[in-house]
Amino acid sequence: MTKYHAVRDQLLDRLDDMTAGDQFPPERDLALELGVSRMTLRRAIDELVTRGAVRRRHGSGVFALGPKLDQALIASSFTEHMRARGLTPGARTLSFEISPAGSRTQRQLGLREGAEVVAISRLRLADDEPIALEDLNVSRALLPDLRAEQLEDRSFYELLREQHGIHVAHSIQTIEPTVLDDEEAGHLDVPVHTPALLFERTSCDADGTPIEFVRSVYRGDRYKIRTELTVPHPTGRGTQQDATDGRRP
Amino acid sequence: MTKYHAVRDQLLDRLDDMTAGDQFPPERDLALELGVSRMTLRRAIDELVTRGAVRRRHGSGVFALGPKLDQALIASSFTEHMRARGLTPGARTLSFEISPAGSRTQRQLGLREGAEVVAISRLRLADDEPIALEDLNVSRALLPDLRAEQLEDRSFYELLREQHGIHVAHSIQTIEPTVLDDEEAGHLDVPVHTPALLFERTSCDADGTPIEFVRSVYRGDRYKIRTELTVPHPTGRGTQQDATDGRRP
Repeated sequence: MTKYHAVRDQLLDRLDDMTAGDQFPPERDLALELGVSRMTLRRAIDELVTRGAVRRRHGSGVFALGPKLDQALIASSFTEHMRARGLTPGARTLSFEISPAGSRTQRQLGLREGAEVVAISRLRLADDEPIALEDLNVSRALLPDLRAEQLEDRSFYELLREQHGIHVAHSIQTIEPTVLDDEEAGHLDVPVHTPALLFERTSCDADGTPIEFVRSVYRGDRYKIRTELTVPHPTGRGTQQDATDGRRP
Repeated sequence: MTKYHAVRDQLLDRLDDMTAGDQFPPERDLALELGVSRMTLRRAIDELVTRGAVRRRHGSGVFALGPKLDQALIASSFTEHMRARGLTPGARTLSFEISPAGSRTQRQLGLREGAEVVAISRLRLADDEPIALEDLNVSRALLPDLRAEQLEDRSFYELLREQHGIHVAHSIQTIEPTVLDDEEAGHLDVPVHTPALLFERTSCDADGTPIEFVRSVYRGDRYKIRTELTVPHPTGRGTQQDATDGRRP
């Protein structure tokens, strides 16, 4: 382990005992205390900034950001996840367009050439803080009367259930790391190139009819995934369990 | 949706029909064909480079990288995952150190102050290509005779089972996006700041004895997570299923 990795781990230890807004000692003091150069300390802090564990405020120091929102990989909606954490979920519609499906969306939703889709871009919030950007695509034939205002501060899954009697039964989702481009970073109010999780999800109902194709980016500085895994003895293979002890940020 | 996002999706469509090594048409031709400026096209390609969907080779063009290795979130080891994909797993030990546990590792492994840990840093390979960097920490008291060469090209879980009769029963894991620093990027043979998935995992045996604390970074340009989710009608809450149809790259 290189010296700066050791310093990083010491700082992560400290952070375990700090709450959001707590401040690190001045760089000079902290470097002395840890017995490393200021350059090594700065490099370790750089990594914590990238990971979203701390924030640097110019001229005033380095502050703990507190634990990230963590989410188990279950299909309940953003809205339900945030409520489960005692946070108020929100959604702000950025754009709402009806147009012929691109071939990618067409394929994901099992549509014919030229079929129309409703493409909705939404900012997802927790206690008014922007957390994720969501590009939602649904077949227009499935929801011909969908209007932008129906999605304002509302779970799409709730809307489907309550207004249309449609139940999402099965989703396939991929998760990749990415960095936010300038447009995404602008909406999410973070620096450009902030690490983020990119989710792509296709969901269908119990009959296998495709319902939605969703592409979302979640801020990596505020959000992480938490999973629990149980391995049946003694084969060494396991199944995914629903994580139940999400922490509040 | 901005113009460059539309172009990005058209390029992702094309990539679905391409295999690793296939080349995009020259930038000038492709921009004409898509009816966008070369600047817009370049920006869309930049995002695909960041996401690891394509690679730019200076002076010769843009090439498809083929699908990423995808992994379901089950506790079987890197070794088992790669074998399931028909790839040859490998492990190269980068460092092997015995030292008193830092307070973070101490806490994760439930050790007393001053207890020693074996800290092993390994490069994980699939068909000789580096995929992940793994920092594995185990209590020295648990495995007093562990030697570096035992971990060369070998699953740690297999070693635990076969040599020590220890079975990992339960893991808690978090997953965050990050970018690779220069040291990590060097080991993984990718450009610095390549997006990556950071896993932190603590595992214990059936009696709840902590076995390992692992921190791994996986190349985002070669690796993604795939999950399937099933929602029992009609509550809207679901459970994670083991994804069984991993694709071969």
